Amino acid sequence: MTRRGDTLFFEHPAGVRAWAAVGGKKEAEGPLGPCFDRTVGDDRFGCDTWEQGERAMLRDAASRALNKADLAAVDLAAMLGGDLLNQCVTTSFTARALGAPFLGLYNACATMAEALLLGAVLNDAGIRGPVLCSASSHFCTAERQYRFPVEYGGQRPPTAQWTATAAGTVVLTPRPAPVRITAATVGRVCDAGVTDAADMGSAMALSAYETLRAYFRDSGTVPGDFDLIATGDLGRIGAGVVRALFDGDGVPLGSRYRDCGELLFGPEQDAHAGASGCGCSAAVLCCRILPDLAAGRCRSALFCGTGALLSPTSVSQGDSIPGVCHLVRLERGEGGASC
Amino acid sequence: MTRRGDTLFFEHPAGVRAWAAVGGKKEAEGPLGPCFDRTVGDDRFGCDTWEQGERAMLRDAASRALNKADLAAVDLAAMLGGDLLNQCVTTSFTARALGAPFLGLYNACATMAEALLLGAVLNDAGIRGPVLCSASSHFCTAERQYRFPVEYGGQRPPTAQWTATAAGTVVLTPRPAPVRITAATVGRVCDAGVTDAADMGSAMALSAYETLRAYFRDSGTVPGDFDLIATGDLGRIGAGVVRALFDGDGVPLGSRYRDCGELLFGPEQDAHAGASGCGCSAAVLCCRILPDLAAGRCRSALFCGTGALLSPTSVSQGDSIPGVCHLVRLERGEGGASC
Repeated sequence: MTRRGDTLFFEHPAGVRAWAAVGGKKEAEGPLGPCFDRTVGDDRFGCDTWEQGERAMLRDAASRALNKADLAAVDLAAMLGGDLLNQCVTTSFTARALGAPFLGLYNACATMAEALLLGAVLNDAGIRGPVLCSASSHFCTAERQYRFPVEYGGQRPPTAQWTATAAGTVVLTPRPAPVRITAATVGRVCDAGVTDAADMGSAMALSAYETLRAYFRDSGTVPGDFDLIATGDLGRIGAGVVRALFDGDGVPLGSRYRDCGELLFGPEQDAHAGASGCGCSAAVLCCRILPDLAAGRCRSALFCGTGALLSPTSVSQGDSIPGVCHLVRLERGEGGASC
Repeated sequence: MTRRGDTLFFEHPAGVRAWAAVGGKKEAEGPLGPCFDRTVGDDRFGCDTWEQGERAMLRDAASRALNKADLAAVDLAAMLGGDLLNQCVTTSFTARALGAPFLGLYNACATMAEALLLGAVLNDAGIRGPVLCSASSHFCTAERQYRFPVEYGGQRPPTAQWTATAAGTVVLTPRPAPVRITAATVGRVCDAGVTDAADMGSAMALSAYETLRAYFRDSGTVPGDFDLIATGDLGRIGAGVVRALFDGDGVPLGSRYRDCGELLFGPEQDAHAGASGCGCSAAVLCCRILPDLAAGRCRSALFCGTGALLSPTSVSQGDSIPGVCHLVRLERGEGGASC
């Protein structure tokens, strides 16, 4: 690979061989519901606790992607992923179940993009084997960890987003595949000074804007060069900020710009500013973006994962909420069946 | 690079250009105290809270390593790191202060080894710029997050380890340097069935054993090929398990085997089973292992970061404690001044 600015251009692009998404009941009822590989009405996924349920969901998504790629977990050269729970236990326990060499990541809701970026780097460097990238989140595990006991029924302001109960998994290989990762931009941490943990879209929007600007600068491209530019998960408010910032620059993103947090739930689903959680962008990637690329409905896309790097402690101590956004460029590949 | 089994052999080894360690009062009083770049008696590092103090400590360690490498943060191609706090806020806020492209990692106390491994992969793939690797921990921030309010004075069992207040930072570059990273093994998650969160050494020992065995198998080497084999942070009990497992295989590790958790504090410091926290192995790396390699007192070392992948929630729900261990092979380099 070569680097220009903050962007890595891959000499040996990773092939996106297979992918899968598993979600919960609310996700099933949303516009992308039919596109999930599986949705489950029981928010414990048949387990005793929500936390164990989140692991079962992620493990199922991993098995489904591996099956589609005609691989077993034992074939994996590495697994890269993370989640929102303290100490990323969902991903660690799933890695224990899979038994694959495991590199744990944490960049909040930018984790799936980070996993794809580092998976593509491992591929370019010559790992010569399949790499599993994953991210997951769960409304109930996140709600009680970050906010209130779910039973309390805390009221949510209009700027709040709804954490998706969803897991997305992607298998990268060095071989020809329906989609390729041809470049990626490593995000810098940006801080717009937002201190309201119920308005994370506003907190993260600046990072999405800066990473997209860095990619356009480093690659010499403009928004019009892409069929799709997808951030996630900024939600309605954060996506509006990104649109306004590019409009202000005289470079409107237009209708090719979408945010994963706007796509997962419908307006009637009471999700307020939209969906969030690192399972959201991972699932939208696997339910919509990758299928559209594989089927030729889209030829070139920028997938920009956005993460809010706060903790309940940092917020309670009065810190503002930094954001980070990693970008991967996805292109229709040369070979392989769609998934 | 090429991969055999779980091990990556670098075609273009990253140069370890510079490093720095900053620690607290107890670390200053330990046997490695004089080897730190700076130790501070105030556990808030001049800030209002322990959490802000931990960030100040990490930022200081980053600045010192960058200064030694004659670099500014703006020169960095990437920063890779993590810490023990929920959502890794120490590292994220430090990345905000530095302004470098940031990839957040979490593998508990294996995070420094993971950062070196992925930094070496980025280098091998051709990032062609300096990469900062970091890890930090703080006794007071960890204690109140994982166990009890510090003021409570909870009694610690003899198997417990003492979380180090320490940060270690390493600058990797493509250029000749005092030390090189020539290979690395990606660890698999292992679980010995230990459920006692006050005995993490026992919980992690199996992962260290398995990763070392994988490296010896993949590389065709034996323990006698190395001047130093360092795990961290298993402490006295976990290190004893590793010694016993290799003894049982008829491959004794001998006196070349040390654990970072045994090296940071002296027996009179009341640290029970030894030191822990991802700042421990990072600081021992920067205070002792890298200086020994740079000065020629050691020619070849295996640095094996070990992490316990638990959370307070997973423990309270009755889950056992999985471990992971990543290994990097460090060799005396061909050029550059020692640091």
